[in-house]
Amino acid sequence: MIIAGVMTGTSVDAIDVALCNIQDEGGRHAVTLFAYSEAPYPIELEEKVKGALAGTASMADLSAIPFELASAYAEAINTLVKEANVTLDLVAVHGQTLWHEPPLHTWQAMSGPALSALLSIPVVHDFRAADVAVGGQGAPLVPIFDVAVLQSTTVDRVALNIGGMANITLLPAGGGLDDVRAFDTGPGNVLIDAVCKASFGKRFDNDGAIARSGIIIQRALSELQALPYFAQEPPKSTGRELFGEQMANDLWRRFSHPSMPSEDLITTLTELTAWSIADHIQRYQPSTTEVLVSGGGARNAFLLERLSSYLRNMVVKPTDTLGVPSDAKEAMAFAYLGYRTYHGLAGNIPTVTGATAPVVLGSIANAR
Amino acid sequence: MIIAGVMTGTSVDAIDVALCNIQDEGGRHAVTLFAYSEAPYPIELEEKVKGALAGTASMADLSAIPFELASAYAEAINTLVKEANVTLDLVAVHGQTLWHEPPLHTWQAMSGPALSALLSIPVVHDFRAADVAVGGQGAPLVPIFDVAVLQSTTVDRVALNIGGMANITLLPAGGGLDDVRAFDTGPGNVLIDAVCKASFGKRFDNDGAIARSGIIIQRALSELQALPYFAQEPPKSTGRELFGEQMANDLWRRFSHPSMPSEDLITTLTELTAWSIADHIQRYQPSTTEVLVSGGGARNAFLLERLSSYLRNMVVKPTDTLGVPSDAKEAMAFAYLGYRTYHGLAGNIPTVTGATAPVVLGSIANAR
Repeated sequence: MIIAGVMTGTSVDAIDVALCNIQDEGGRHAVTLFAYSEAPYPIELEEKVKGALAGTASMADLSAIPFELASAYAEAINTLVKEANVTLDLVAVHGQTLWHEPPLHTWQAMSGPALSALLSIPVVHDFRAADVAVGGQGAPLVPIFDVAVLQSTTVDRVALNIGGMANITLLPAGGGLDDVRAFDTGPGNVLIDAVCKASFGKRFDNDGAIARSGIIIQRALSELQALPYFAQEPPKSTGRELFGEQMANDLWRRFSHPSMPSEDLITTLTELTAWSIADHIQRYQPSTTEVLVSGGGARNAFLLERLSSYLRNMVVKPTDTLGVPSDAKEAMAFAYLGYRTYHGLAGNIPTVTGATAPVVLGSIANAR
Repeated sequence: MIIAGVMTGTSVDAIDVALCNIQDEGGRHAVTLFAYSEAPYPIELEEKVKGALAGTASMADLSAIPFELASAYAEAINTLVKEANVTLDLVAVHGQTLWHEPPLHTWQAMSGPALSALLSIPVVHDFRAADVAVGGQGAPLVPIFDVAVLQSTTVDRVALNIGGMANITLLPAGGGLDDVRAFDTGPGNVLIDAVCKASFGKRFDNDGAIARSGIIIQRALSELQALPYFAQEPPKSTGRELFGEQMANDLWRRFSHPSMPSEDLITTLTELTAWSIADHIQRYQPSTTEVLVSGGGARNAFLLERLSSYLRNMVVKPTDTLGVPSDAKEAMAFAYLGYRTYHGLAGNIPTVTGATAPVVLGSIANAR
């Protein structure tokens, strides 16, 4: 099946579209990416969504968002499909998260019926709701893709995604779904990015160049390493309420002055990120031989070097080497989740999300 | 198939559940109702929904509404299914309209994935969006049910629903979908109810008793009959912005004083409703032999008498006589629309909604 996976995150900056060929090869699912694009978010729609996220949108705007998203997605998909010159069988869309309060409720806006009517193709959408309805966190949903695409039958691997937070999926060689564990290890890029912005007016530390030029502030690192989150047993998840702007501002105020240039704080936070990821891998799957990295952090060469230095017996490399470009991974994962739903296969892993049962995720619109 | 159709209207007063057996009898769809209930709306949820309709709901409330609706629907369905002692194959849910602005967008809240996960049954939901996405009004959707269940091969019929507004579906004997026309004739109960409340503190004119005791205020009736809406050619639709509180208040102020008791205004408005329905039937299908009435107005005996007096050659009777209890009709219609979607059949009639094409309506969630 040729499936378009579509992802838009809470940063509301781009519409990621991954065109995948997904085949059942004797019970094993093979996912091959053959085209990927990051389309711009229409400005008016971006403003409406940001209003919704800020809690200031009108009912008319909230009613309009799912239809305008459908139009924007349809255009992004059509453009890429035309370039790739393929016939699409299915579209799988994450939608725009406007609220997430598991295990009570979650809200991924996007009109499946409208998108299906516009494209004349079946659309799978609203992936998180069913897991939340059976007591799950509605996240993470990517691990089942990690199992299908990144797991090995011979070596123990870890799939590591470094976004705002960092999360890992433990993939023991040849293990089943019940053996999979996935959780947040702590901060990913969030603290580094925040201090970069405050100190250097940059959105991120390109290639880790700033971190590479500083030295570790040992007192800050030790203090951060002692945070209870790192010692807590999984399953666990964290967010900006712990590792976010407030922590970054506090650190910057305390540890950045003329005698301690701010490069040092970025070096320290990069070390914290590398250490916390490595520490969890060593604690929960010391037999790991390969760590497969995706997300924005996969492009921070210095961070990967520091991670490698902690994980001496493991190979740390981007997922790109396995046919999964690190930027495209999440959109690819939703293409695969759509494939599973279309074939009546559960998409959540109860041990990972906390759900009481595996469920087929989402809803399928097939207007014509 | 045993299908539960579920309807909740903008009055937010009850959850209507109709259990239907729907069979394909050689291309003709037979819809048999075997259980019906009106379950109470949970009070906290009613308050949240009313807040949403008033534009004062928080994002957290708007995120909660689809999940709380799913829980309330699941309970109402389970209760009736247990009483009826049947095994359900499918659920079809209209959801709660929170905004409707065709042809741009529409919003029927209800989490299909959550309801399907709770019931372990496939759920069809979000019926209006696809029609709106292809340029339609997203309404009316009941006419295709009228064709399936109320159309005759031998006599010309009209399906008349008297709710807040009154609408008719013209069903020429043995006609196809292209021959169906459906539109609002004008006010249904809305003006009668509003004056009842203002004059007598009653929610409605029970059995038409008040109207029966008054006389027609000819000046008011003539003035209302001259409103351009009545002369306008179909397709057309109207709402409370024309026939609503404001018009009722205005009429009450002008035509209700000691020398003109307020019974007379209710008599006049009942006459207006009967006249406007009859006038449209005579103009657009004078060959009609049967008028099949549903909705709250079907219980207003005086209104039906007045209607009969205008339509001397036609039989005016409730749909109940054809196995469609007038209160259950809309929930039954959604059960049938769900059946159509589940079988990949279009549910809208483009000549009726204004859509550019027939489309399969809604989205199907099938969690386990």
